[in-house]
Amino acid sequence: MNSFGQKFRFTTFGESHGTALGVIVDGVPSGLKIDQEFIQNEMDRRKPGKSEVETARKESDKIEILSGVFEGISTGTPIAMVLYNENQKSRDYSNVKDLFRPGHADFTYFYKYGIRDYRGGGRSSARETSTRVACGAIAKLLLKEVGIEVQSGLLEIGGIRSQNIDFQYAKQNILSTLDKNKEAKQLEVIQKAKKEHDSVGGVVLIKATNVPIGLGEPMYGKLDAKIAELMMGLNAVKAVEIGDGIEASKTKGSQNNDQIRTNGFESNHSGGILGGISNGDEIIVKVYFKPTPSIFLEQHTINTSNENIDYKLQGRHDPCVAIRGSVVCESQLAIILADMLLLNMNSKIEYLKKIYN
Amino acid sequence: MNSFGQKFRFTTFGESHGTALGVIVDGVPSGLKIDQEFIQNEMDRRKPGKSEVETARKESDKIEILSGVFEGISTGTPIAMVLYNENQKSRDYSNVKDLFRPGHADFTYFYKYGIRDYRGGGRSSARETSTRVACGAIAKLLLKEVGIEVQSGLLEIGGIRSQNIDFQYAKQNILSTLDKNKEAKQLEVIQKAKKEHDSVGGVVLIKATNVPIGLGEPMYGKLDAKIAELMMGLNAVKAVEIGDGIEASKTKGSQNNDQIRTNGFESNHSGGILGGISNGDEIIVKVYFKPTPSIFLEQHTINTSNENIDYKLQGRHDPCVAIRGSVVCESQLAIILADMLLLNMNSKIEYLKKIYN
Amino acid sequence: MNSFGQKFRFTTFGESHGTALGVIVDGVPSGLKIDQEFIQNEMDRRKPGKSEVETARKESDKIEILSGVFEGISTGTPIAMVLYNENQKSRDYSNVKDLFRPGHADFTYFYKYGIRDYRGGGRSSARETSTRVACGAIAKLLLKEVGIEVQSGLLEIGGIRSQNIDFQYAKQNILSTLDKNKEAKQLEVIQKAKKEHDSVGGVVLIKATNVPIGLGEPMYGKLDAKIAELMMGLNAVKAVEIGDGIEASKTKGSQNNDQIRTNGFESNHSGGILGGISNGDEIIVKVYFKPTPSIFLEQHTINTSNENIDYKLQGRHDPCVAIRGSVVCESQLAIILADMLLLNMNSKIEYLKKIYN
Amino acid sequence: MNSFGQKFRFTTFGESHGTALGVIVDGVPSGLKIDQEFIQNEMDRRKPGKSEVETARKESDKIEILSGVFEGISTGTPIAMVLYNENQKSRDYSNVKDLFRPGHADFTYFYKYGIRDYRGGGRSSARETSTRVACGAIAKLLLKEVGIEVQSGLLEIGGIRSQNIDFQYAKQNILSTLDKNKEAKQLEVIQKAKKEHDSVGGVVLIKATNVPIGLGEPMYGKLDAKIAELMMGLNAVKAVEIGDGIEASKTKGSQNNDQIRTNGFESNHSGGILGGISNGDEIIVKVYFKPTPSIFLEQHTINTSNENIDYKLQGRHDPCVAIRGSVVCESQLAIILADMLLLNMNSKIEYLKKIYN
Repeated sequence: MNSFGQKFRFTTFGESHGTALGVIVDGVPSGLKIDQEFIQNEMDRRKPGKSEVETARKESDKIEILSGVFEGISTGTPIAMVLYNENQKSRDYSNVKDLFRPGHADFTYFYKYGIRDYRGGGRSSARETSTRVACGAIAKLLLKEVGIEVQSGLLEIGGIRSQNIDFQYAKQNILSTLDKNKEAKQLEVIQKAKKEHDSVGGVVLIKATNVPIGLGEPMYGKLDAKIAELMMGLNAVKAVEIGDGIEASKTKGSQNNDQIRTNGFESNHSGGILGGISNGDEIIVKVYFKPTPSIFLEQHTINTSNENIDYKLQGRHDPCVAIRGSVVCESQLAIILADMLLLNMNSKIEYLKKIYN
Repeated sequence: MNSFGQKFRFTTFGESHGTALGVIVDGVPSGLKIDQEFIQNEMDRRKPGKSEVETARKESDKIEILSGVFEGISTGTPIAMVLYNENQKSRDYSNVKDLFRPGHADFTYFYKYGIRDYRGGGRSSARETSTRVACGAIAKLLLKEVGIEVQSGLLEIGGIRSQNIDFQYAKQNILSTLDKNKEAKQLEVIQKAKKEHDSVGGVVLIKATNVPIGLGEPMYGKLDAKIAELMMGLNAVKAVEIGDGIEASKTKGSQNNDQIRTNGFESNHSGGILGGISNGDEIIVKVYFKPTPSIFLEQHTINTSNENIDYKLQGRHDPCVAIRGSVVCESQLAIILADMLLLNMNSKIEYLKKIYN
Repeated sequence: MNSFGQKFRFTTFGESHGTALGVIVDGVPSGLKIDQEFIQNEMDRRKPGKSEVETARKESDKIEILSGVFEGISTGTPIAMVLYNENQKSRDYSNVKDLFRPGHADFTYFYKYGIRDYRGGGRSSARETSTRVACGAIAKLLLKEVGIEVQSGLLEIGGIRSQNIDFQYAKQNILSTLDKNKEAKQLEVIQKAKKEHDSVGGVVLIKATNVPIGLGEPMYGKLDAKIAELMMGLNAVKAVEIGDGIEASKTKGSQNNDQIRTNGFESNHSGGILGGISNGDEIIVKVYFKPTPSIFLEQHTINTSNENIDYKLQGRHDPCVAIRGSVVCESQLAIILADMLLLNMNSKIEYLKKIYN
Repeated sequence: MNSFGQKFRFTTFGESHGTALGVIVDGVPSGLKIDQEFIQNEMDRRKPGKSEVETARKESDKIEILSGVFEGISTGTPIAMVLYNENQKSRDYSNVKDLFRPGHADFTYFYKYGIRDYRGGGRSSARETSTRVACGAIAKLLLKEVGIEVQSGLLEIGGIRSQNIDFQYAKQNILSTLDKNKEAKQLEVIQKAKKEHDSVGGVVLIKATNVPIGLGEPMYGKLDAKIAELMMGLNAVKAVEIGDGIEASKTKGSQNNDQIRTNGFESNHSGGILGGISNGDEIIVKVYFKPTPSIFLEQHTINTSNENIDYKLQGRHDPCVAIRGSVVCESQLAIILADMLLLNMNSKIEYLKKIYN
């Protein structure tokens, strides 16, 4: 169960402090130019240690392509990418080895598997998301062929909401915030939490533009369902919303329906998805991150011998995981759109004839 | 793509006004007592026309089992269940045949497939959810074998929030509301909308109790991800939340972490899921429904010849789809837990030895 | 595990003497004309009781379409087809209820599931293959759109080999034999076996013509692998060969290699498949059927209480299952080619651009 | 489509002369001792250059584990293994770059993908099978936990049949032949072909012992079907037979049925599989390999510009690929049994209760 996708399908492996992490991207059509510099740039957007609002862990996150690309072009065979852990032996884990950090997956992994790689969370570490970004970079190269673009940024940090949404601006600031005017306030809330040895939550907004009508496979491969699945499965994510979903639950049909004119929809409360299929409008997704569970305050927990422990974590952590989560969400939306793009090619007999006749 | 699940896997078929709808439930272990009366009762909980807050369409929703059960017991072979449409020829569709109802999937199905069964929404009708309830009933019978129970009710209707949560009470009132004290107000908001030819949204709360630790398959078969997928794919759903997910995005780690004691977690903000795996606490899910798109007010739309049309729908519709959605969400959570229960049996070598040695 | 295929995917259900059998065909592109008469004709080719070399069981095998077709055209939604058992209560099974017929799946189903629908073999009956033929008929309609044709016939019956291969002739005789000159001898061997209360094996040859180059998905969705899988899973099949596979194992490279000229291959030992991908030549498959295990001679067996029993079966059975197996094999090859045709549409970026730009 | 298996699932990547090949093994239960020395030994059994009957290509085939194992024990997370190509830049491919070697996949890959990694066959090279052996080694460690053993050897080389079958002997001779008395003759036939710049085919026999009753998942995950699929997908394989399948097609039911006594089956014509499910007897599989297509005689072919070419291959190749194919087939049977072992754990409600209650 370490794979995702039907036709554009990836499989990841690797632990936070194991030898390496990696991803196999299967189903990339042949003939795609694989721009390695672009892939590395995407990796760099996610890598830790770029600013004070990120963990101090140092990793170059240098991606290496092992297969599937010949003379710079995809061959149709699986593209394997690997990322060696440089920071793998930097710490002593004896203090966390036998206890369960609250809010982390330590407890559930231990009871599910009876054994746990306790070094930095092992497989459950957000470090795994690096492989999703590598895969997402390939997806973006594919989407570019048909003009689809995916962008993201922080809609909310510690309860401070961005209002003047600017995806270009999000690329230029250390918070990846969407609102220049809220940046100072959002930074302040993080700094305050950090100083108090605490952390804050946040919300990421992701947008895809120029998406053709028809992406999404009813009944159980719907576009919104697949987005919800992949986003919810991301570390620290606890809610996913399409368009104005939460607000919609409080409104009336007459307010929420997107009425239609020949030049398009008059509004986009639906977030560009109707009946699980893209309607040609912008795809809008909101992803809700809980505050980083790693805080440096005393907490109640138990150990593997089932004894109560009062414990205080030490180490380096992102005070707001949503920030580095932004590019991961963006990558994930790209992955799903790439998969849906391929799947939709089988929707009509007309397409079949276009290819074979 | 009309199947869902890995080991407890179902496949549905059928259109709103076609001959029949049905579901094949594959992967049910042999030896399960199949209580047909219970299945029919579940169907009856969802069937339309039970009260003024539901569509007036009349369907007995009589389920027939075609295979997989012998002398009342599951045999390990696929269980096919079918539901004939009685109300199939009741209407003239000439008025909606060529236009796209706003907020519906008419537009996207037409452009994706180039052809559309326009009778009552065809495959995109919420009538398909009857088959999910039939499947969910089998799932519940399976869960009962290990003591898991799933319940649901309305947390919010048209913005009116239930506060004193009572799942028992939800079973007894026509709104399926969780709060006796808010029932009158919630009913009023629906009645008002109905009178105004409008509709309202709502939020369903689902809870599973007695869930063993360890359900959920990282990295891409996580319990929360699969819940989000199936719930988001449901008609009219636009957001899914696990535990206190949305609130969590606004709080601090020190407030949100569920601290642990030897007798359990001190809080359940996580909704019973950590790292995508059940932690033994109650599973809590919130599903946000948009208002029914079928309203009886004039709206802008276009037709299949891409001309602007001002149009007013006629017919029978639920003024708040979330109400009948409640039992569907409950069924869906049962389905996912059944699948995860089976999948988790492969997690440890110890289990393998328990079965084979 | 009652589904097969990736994009053209079917799921079957039903037992030999249960209420009904059926199949859901998922992934049929929209816009395909569904010729119900053709489907019924295919069903009739397989149905029992057409001649002395087939079981006397009478079933009209009338197929009913429940969904997925609107005004005679596929809509892109799942096509469900159902087949009610007419002959369902014709017999008393008390004599076979508690024992395991040699060569049948009674023994393995009983021990795997602990419960067994003993009526006519239940799910393990070859009656399930009727649903494969229904699905295969849809596949053939799809293949027709690009000019692919699939044919079959008996290559060998009870060791008597057909030599002058004539697929047209196979359609006209009760044995479906490929060789007019061997027909009498082959019939004789069956009649002799039948008289002796015994049965004979046989070999079916299947050929697909006009298959485009490129069908088959390395590394684990190869065309030959998928053919082998589906054919071997068919009742009574114990070996599958592509092209001259068995003979090839005894020859030299210089004899077996199909050399190439600009107008095509100089021979077709490979059966039209290289590296698991169609090479544009005829696809040639041979399927080896064991003799019908149902014979009317005394045999050793045990019962469910693990006691030795000497037993003699009664009833009606095909003396050579390969004969009615011919159309099933043909249907199966059509199904696989339909799936591969759809899958291959994602092979090149060039195709993507053809559809979306 | 570079993955195989449902629960014990692997995904491979890599080209013959790319940077590396590898495999991710997903679904290994936690708690399994991962014996790296054993895995390397298995790799060594397959690696080239061990004798005169194998290609002279030198590769140490040193396997490196990147994830999924902690302190020597499986953790339940994916086990990634990688194999760097040492011999990657040893040759000049300009002579084969633009033409299609007869009997190879060059032609079909080129037309399917429009681009081809021509170095040593790229992805279509039998070098990919090294990753199947690595995965098979993990499967064998799993099978060992319940006592299942898999063995293999050469049943036929260039038409010379082994008669006194001895699986122990097969492990000790360079031909992996099963018959000591036929070894000289079989070696001679290879040497002769090699001298003549030609190659020979062969047949591999694989046997699994101590397999529990009940492995195999009807209707479309049958044990024999999955064996046929994986074996047929292996390079150079053109036929697969279970038990006495080919002979069975020529015999009568009375000869072929395996009659049953309380102490077991009286014969094993069925190869240990009935109705697609293991019956507790030995699993017997025969795999037919064509002669190596790489021969050093002049052959007709065409080039990528569709011109006729008379061409003579140079290089290093196995004169009989079946020999090194033996351990690959053995690994593959182990993989399938491991998968079926896990899948079967969900067959009965009784097992569910054993785990959860």
